[in-house]
Amino acid sequence: MPAYRGPVADMQFVLHDVLKVTGAGIPGYDGLDPSLTEAILTEAAKLASDVLAPVNAAGDRQGCRLENGVVRTPDGYRAAFDAIKAGGWNGLDLPEAFGGQDLPYLMGTAVGEMFVSANMALNMYQGLTHGAISAILAHGSDAQKATYLPKMVSLDWTGTMNLTEPHCGTDLGLMRTKAEPQGDGSYRITGQKIFISAGEHDMAANIIHLVLAKAPGGGEGTKGISLFIVPKFLVREDGSLGARNAVSCGKIEEKMGIHGNATCVMNYDGATGFLIGDLHKGMRAMFTMMNEARLGVGLQGYAQAEAAYRNAVAYARDRLQGRDVTGAKNPGGPADPIIVHPDIRRSLMDQKSFVEGARAFTFWGASLIDASHRGGDAKAEAMISLLTPVIKGFLTDRGFDMCVAAQQVYGGHGYIEEWGMSQFARDARIAMIYEGANGVQALDLVGRKLGADGGKAIMAFFDEVKGTIRAHEGDERLKAAILDPLKSASKDLQAAAMVFLQQGAKNPNAALAGSSDFLHLMGHVALGLMWARMAAAAQGALDAGTGDVEFCKTKLATARYYMARQLPATRMHLARIESGAEPVMALEAARF
Amino acid sequence: MPAYRGPVADMQFVLHDVLKVTGAGIPGYDGLDPSLTEAILTEAAKLASDVLAPVNAAGDRQGCRLENGVVRTPDGYRAAFDAIKAGGWNGLDLPEAFGGQDLPYLMGTAVGEMFVSANMALNMYQGLTHGAISAILAHGSDAQKATYLPKMVSLDWTGTMNLTEPHCGTDLGLMRTKAEPQGDGSYRITGQKIFISAGEHDMAANIIHLVLAKAPGGGEGTKGISLFIVPKFLVREDGSLGARNAVSCGKIEEKMGIHGNATCVMNYDGATGFLIGDLHKGMRAMFTMMNEARLGVGLQGYAQAEAAYRNAVAYARDRLQGRDVTGAKNPGGPADPIIVHPDIRRSLMDQKSFVEGARAFTFWGASLIDASHRGGDAKAEAMISLLTPVIKGFLTDRGFDMCVAAQQVYGGHGYIEEWGMSQFARDARIAMIYEGANGVQALDLVGRKLGADGGKAIMAFFDEVKGTIRAHEGDERLKAAILDPLKSASKDLQAAAMVFLQQGAKNPNAALAGSSDFLHLMGHVALGLMWARMAAAAQGALDAGTGDVEFCKTKLATARYYMARQLPATRMHLARIESGAEPVMALEAARF
Repeated sequence: MPAYRGPVADMQFVLHDVLKVTGAGIPGYDGLDPSLTEAILTEAAKLASDVLAPVNAAGDRQGCRLENGVVRTPDGYRAAFDAIKAGGWNGLDLPEAFGGQDLPYLMGTAVGEMFVSANMALNMYQGLTHGAISAILAHGSDAQKATYLPKMVSLDWTGTMNLTEPHCGTDLGLMRTKAEPQGDGSYRITGQKIFISAGEHDMAANIIHLVLAKAPGGGEGTKGISLFIVPKFLVREDGSLGARNAVSCGKIEEKMGIHGNATCVMNYDGATGFLIGDLHKGMRAMFTMMNEARLGVGLQGYAQAEAAYRNAVAYARDRLQGRDVTGAKNPGGPADPIIVHPDIRRSLMDQKSFVEGARAFTFWGASLIDASHRGGDAKAEAMISLLTPVIKGFLTDRGFDMCVAAQQVYGGHGYIEEWGMSQFARDARIAMIYEGANGVQALDLVGRKLGADGGKAIMAFFDEVKGTIRAHEGDERLKAAILDPLKSASKDLQAAAMVFLQQGAKNPNAALAGSSDFLHLMGHVALGLMWARMAAAAQGALDAGTGDVEFCKTKLATARYYMARQLPATRMHLARIESGAEPVMALEAARF
Repeated sequence: MPAYRGPVADMQFVLHDVLKVTGAGIPGYDGLDPSLTEAILTEAAKLASDVLAPVNAAGDRQGCRLENGVVRTPDGYRAAFDAIKAGGWNGLDLPEAFGGQDLPYLMGTAVGEMFVSANMALNMYQGLTHGAISAILAHGSDAQKATYLPKMVSLDWTGTMNLTEPHCGTDLGLMRTKAEPQGDGSYRITGQKIFISAGEHDMAANIIHLVLAKAPGGGEGTKGISLFIVPKFLVREDGSLGARNAVSCGKIEEKMGIHGNATCVMNYDGATGFLIGDLHKGMRAMFTMMNEARLGVGLQGYAQAEAAYRNAVAYARDRLQGRDVTGAKNPGGPADPIIVHPDIRRSLMDQKSFVEGARAFTFWGASLIDASHRGGDAKAEAMISLLTPVIKGFLTDRGFDMCVAAQQVYGGHGYIEEWGMSQFARDARIAMIYEGANGVQALDLVGRKLGADGGKAIMAFFDEVKGTIRAHEGDERLKAAILDPLKSASKDLQAAAMVFLQQGAKNPNAALAGSSDFLHLMGHVALGLMWARMAAAAQGALDAGTGDVEFCKTKLATARYYMARQLPATRMHLARIESGAEPVMALEAARF
C-alpha cells in the first residue's frame, strides 16, 4: 500500500532559495520567513501522511454510492475531511474577514500539493469549495459573501462548479439550462448538468452550487449566459438552513479513477437560484477564476506523479532482481536492488526531474497570481495568463506519463490494484481532461495567449529565460551543462513562435495543427528555466556554504539530467510544427 | 458502447500489396491468394464484431470471481469462447496432424489482431493455449503431443505458462518452485506461481499448465530450471480425464484491466508433473517460444489502439462542438463535428499512422517467423530475433499512448466507464509489462540482439532500409516527403548504434542508459520503413490503375504524416543516447 511523506525540504528550497519569497516584494510575502513556512508545511505533511493518505486506496476501492438520493462517500472520508476542516486548512489563503488566515495563495498551493499527493479524490471536495469561494469573493454581493463565505471557508458547507451539459463541454454556447426571473429577484433554474465533481455527498451540511444558465434577453451563444448561486438548502436570513431546493443528484458516474469523489449528474428542476455578478456576464465571471482553477489541475498532474515517484523509488530500493552489470552491489543477497539498473534509473530520473521542475513552475505561477491579486501587478497577470495553459496542459500530460512510468517500475505488481500504483495513473488521467481538455489548453495558448497584447507576454517570458542565462553564464560550472541547453531550447521555442506568426495569418490551421506541440515545447523550456534557477540556487548555496551539500549536489545533478535527457524534446516539437498544417489536414473526414 | 469492425481492406493491402505473400517464396504462402485471405479475414471480422466485442465491456465490469476454488468467467464469455472453438480458429495455423488447418502463422496473426481488438481479455484464454501448444510442439515427446495437442488445438482444453513467483519475475534464477523425481518418471511439483493468466476458469474441461521448476542437480541460478507439464486433471491412457491434480488457484488478482481474464496465484502442492524437453534446459525450452509470444503481446498493443482509434473517429465525426476556424462545416447544425479541429485531427492522424504502421511491422515479423519455422531461413530467424523486442516494446508503449490519445478525443466522456474508452487504455497497459517488461525488452535489444553474430542482424535491417530507399528514390513523388525523412531517421539509428559500440566497451552502463531510447528510435525507423513500403505500394497501385484511388491516396497521405510528425522523434532519442550514462547514473541510490 503506498505511503506518503511531504517533500518539505524541496518545497522550502523552492520558496526560499529559488523564489526568495521574503524579498520578492509581493504583499504578504515579507512575513513568510523560513521557520513559518516550515512549520506550516510540516503540519500539512503530517496531516497528509497520517490522515489523508491512509484512506486513499480504500476510497478508490469502495467509491461513492448513490442511495435514495443521498451520496455516501467512502468509509473514513468523513473523518479525514473533518481533520482538514478542524485544522482550518481550507482558509489558509482566504480572507480573515470570512474566517481565513489570509496567507498567500502560494502557501495554499504548497499545502494543496501535499493533500493532492496524499488523496486527490478527497481533496477535490475542498478544492472545488475553494474555487466556488473565489467566485463569490470576486463577483458576489456583500450580502452573498456574508451569507455563504464563512460557512464555506470553514468547510461546513462545500461548493461546486456547474458548466458541462450532456451535449456541451468545451462549447458552452450550446448550453440549454435556463434561468427564468421570478418576481422576487431570484431565478428559477431548470436543466441538467453533468460531470459535477462533489455535486452531492454526506460530508457537509449544505452544498453551494455555482451554475451557469441562460437567462432571457442575453442573445445567442455564450453571450446569454449568467452565473447563479443555487444552494442545496436555501439559507434563511438568520443563516440557518431552510427548505430543500429543487436540485438533486440523478446519478453518479462510474469512472476510470478518482472513485472517492462523487461525479454527479445534477438535475435542476425549477430550483431557486440567485444571480451572482452581472446578468449575461456569467462567462466572464467564470473565467476570472480560470487561472487559479487550471493551476490547481496542473498541480494535480505533478502531485500524483510525486506520490507515484516516491513509491517507485522505495520499491526500486527494495526489490531484488538481477545484478548490476558493473559488479554486484548486494553481493550477500540473492540479487541486487533494481535501482542499480540503468533503465530503472533513467525512469526514476525522468520522474524526479519532472516533479521537482513542475513544482518550481507551479509555485512560480502561484507567486504570479499573488503578485497580480495582492499587488495589482499587471505584468504578473499577463505572465500567468500566458503560463496557465502550459501549467495545466504540460504538467497533466507529463504527470500522467510519469505515473505510468512509476507504475512500470513495479513490473507486474504495478498492474495489481493491491499495490496502489494503478490508482495514481487512473486518478491522474482526469487532470488531462477536466477544466478544459489539454487540446483546448493548447488552443488557448496558441490562439489567444501567444498573440495577446502584441505578444508582450511571450516576449517577457523570453526575457525571463535570457535574464537567468545572463545572470549565470559567467559560471563555467553551469554554462555548458545547464545554460547552453536552455538557450538552445529557448531558440526552438522562438522559432516555433515565428512559424506561427508567418503561417498563421494566411492559414490559421497551421498554428492550430502545431498547438499541442507548442504547448509541450514551451513546457520543456519552462521546466528548463526552473532547473536553471534551481541549479544556480544550489550552486550559490554550495559556494556560500549555506545549503546541505548532498541536497544541493543532487539538485545540480538533476538539473543536468533534465537538460541532457528532457530538453532534446524541443527540437522534435519544433520539427513537427515546421511541417505545418498540410500533413495534419490532408485527409477528408470520411477517409479516417 | 464501443463497436468493432475488422480492418479487412487494410490487412489485404499489407498481405498482398506490401508483403506480396503469394510470391514471397515462403512455404505455404503460395496458396494465400487474395480471395482466400479475404474470406478468412471476413469471417474472423464477423465473429469479432458480432460475438467477441459485445461481451468485452460487460466482461470488464463483471470480471472473474473465485468461488470455492472455481473461477467463474464473466457472463457471455463461455458462449463467445465456444464460438471461437466451433469455428476452429485456434487451429488455423496449427498442424493438421493435431486437428489444425496448417495455414501460416501470419494468418493466425491477422485473425489474432481482430480477436484482440474486439476482446483482449477473452482472447487471452486462446492465446495462452496457443503458446502452450507451441511449447509442446517444439519440445514434447510424441506421446505428449498425442495426449495433449488434439484437445488443446480444439480448445477443449486450454493451456498456461507458469514462470513468475512472488519474489522473482525478470530474474528467474531466484526461482523456488521444486520438482522432485518420483520412481515412475514423473515429478512432484511444489511451489507458488503468480500472475498466471487463465490459470483457472470454467470454459474448458482441463487446463494444461506448463511450469518452470528446479529439479535436483542442475546447479545454481537459471541452470537448474526444467519445464514440466502439470495438467489440472491427470489424463488416463485412453485419453479420458483421471484424478484431480494437486494444483489449485489460491487467489485471483484485482487488476487495472483485462478483468475478464483470471490472473491467478497458482499453488502447486506436490502436483504430478511431467518433464517436457531436456532436464535442466527449461529456460531454453521457454525461450524458443519467446519470439512468437512477444510478437503476440506487441500485437495486443496496437490492436487495442486500433479499436480505440476506430471509436475515436466515430465520436469525432458525431460530437458537435465549436466551429472550424476556416469556416463552418455544418452550418445548418448547432456546431461542427470536432473532427474539423486541427488538434483533434493531429491526434487521430497520430493514432492512424501508428496503428497501420504497427500492423505492417507485425505482419512482416510474422512472415519472418514463417520463413524461419517453415522455410528454415536463418537470416529471417536472425532478423525476427532482432525485431522482437522492438515489436513488443515499441508497439505496446506507443499502443498504450494511442489508447490514451483516443480516450482524450472523448473529453470527459472518455473518463466515464460507460463509454468504454477507459477500458482500452486499462487493458492495453498490461502489454507494456508482461512477457518481459519493456525495460527488459530494451535490455535484450541493446545488450544481446544488437551485437549478436557481429551485428549482422542490425546490418541486415539497415540493408532493408537502404534497399527500399534505393528502389524508389527515382520517384520524385516519394523522395522528399517519404524517403528522405526515412534516410535521415535511419542515420540517427546508425549513429546511436555507433555510440554504443564506442562507449559500450569501456562503460556498459552507457548503452543500458540509452536502451529504451534506442528501442524507440528503432521502432520509429521500422515504422518509417513500413510506411515507405506502403507508400510505394499505394503509388504503384495508383500508377497501375489497380488500387482503389481514395484508399491509395489515403495511404500516401498517412505515410507523409508519419514522416513529418513522428519520425522527428529519432533525433530526440539520439540526443539522449549521446548524453551517455553520466546524467542517468549520477546520483547515489540514497539521493533519489
